[in-house]
Amino acid sequence: MASGGRSYQLYAGVVTIFSHLIAITVTVLVLVWLLKFQGGFAFKSGNTQKIFNLHPFLMVVGLIVIGGEAIMAYKTMPGTRRAHKGVHIILHLLALLAGILGTYAVFKFKDETDPFFQFLLGFFTFFFSGAAMPARANILPWHTFFGMVIFLLAVCTAETGLLQRFITLGLGLNQEGLIVNFTGLLIFLFAVTVTLSVILPRNHY
Amino acid sequence: MASGGRSYQLYAGVVTIFSHLIAITVTVLVLVWLLKFQGGFAFKSGNTQKIFNLHPFLMVVGLIVIGGEAIMAYKTMPGTRRAHKGVHIILHLLALLAGILGTYAVFKFKDETDPFFQFLLGFFTFFFSGAAMPARANILPWHTFFGMVIFLLAVCTAETGLLQRFITLGLGLNQEGLIVNFTGLLIFLFAVTVTLSVILPRNHY
Repeated sequence: MASGGRSYQLYAGVVTIFSHLIAITVTVLVLVWLLKFQGGFAFKSGNTQKIFNLHPFLMVVGLIVIGGEAIMAYKTMPGTRRAHKGVHIILHLLALLAGILGTYAVFKFKDETDPFFQFLLGFFTFFFSGAAMPARANILPWHTFFGMVIFLLAVCTAETGLLQRFITLGLGLNQEGLIVNFTGLLIFLFAVTVTLSVILPRNHY
Repeated sequence: MASGGRSYQLYAGVVTIFSHLIAITVTVLVLVWLLKFQGGFAFKSGNTQKIFNLHPFLMVVGLIVIGGEAIMAYKTMPGTRRAHKGVHIILHLLALLAGILGTYAVFKFKDETDPFFQFLLGFFTFFFSGAAMPARANILPWHTFFGMVIFLLAVCTAETGLLQRFITLGLGLNQEGLIVNFTGLLIFLFAVTVTLSVILPRNHY
């Protein structure tokens, strides 16, 4: 935010550790929710609920968690810039693949009354994620900025998606409701730590 | 995001113009929605719907739009740093007041099944907004960063609130539904332009 990352008097390393811990917690919470409370998931099943369940899993654990790790690759790893770029691109391709599969999973069961802005948010997230952005030095700040805009769009879409599911399932302050709530909170905290790791300077290994 | 705002090769001025235009559009959309479709608002009325309607108005036009303008004060105005600080604080106090009134308006009609994370997001937004943060030079970057985290929390909460209202009212792809959808989209775009104006360097007046 402020120019000159060093004025934060903190390196990115310690923040990325928190980020990894939150990523693991979010993954565990989503798995407990879908496996224990929602009957698990499958690509082919007579129980269509199991196919739908792929959507929150692929979107949260795929698009957001793996996408967030892709963003942080430049700060989390030792090694050359070339190695960072490779990991950044491979993780983003995995996240994109998860996003495509997750979109496919939900479109089979699309309810026409879905709020349009949620669909648009999701669409643009996917669309822009898929567009190739050159990262030459003179547009690198814009690559970073719009990358973060897309990432935060995805996070915002996930929050609205969780809320919609919360209402549809009629959840309250019970065990399942709390799991979904804390998933939503931790996704936001994950976004905060990913953003902070982008702003802070890299540790010297 | 990248250190050294100048590498964006753009000053904040042009971005803040877009930001003001989006702020005006959001305000108009919210007013049309609440006045034309939802029966208007009042502090005292036999029609409790009118009291509830104060909530989206005060939260969106008060907390988010005025709060966003407060954040941008350092980039939108000519004048001394002392003048910027004064406008920053006065607009934030107005936004805080709107947030308190807006919270009061909705608590009279609180549905116990409201998703907990939406409540927590809103609570922390309000709580942190109210906490005094000193802005001495050595913690200024952190003031800016956590200020933006709070602002984006408020934006995310507004999106979930709009979605909840959308579902509760059973809106679809009709006129009212589109107004609510575009309000949601424009609030996100407003957040993007406010964030960008914080990152970009100030114009020389």
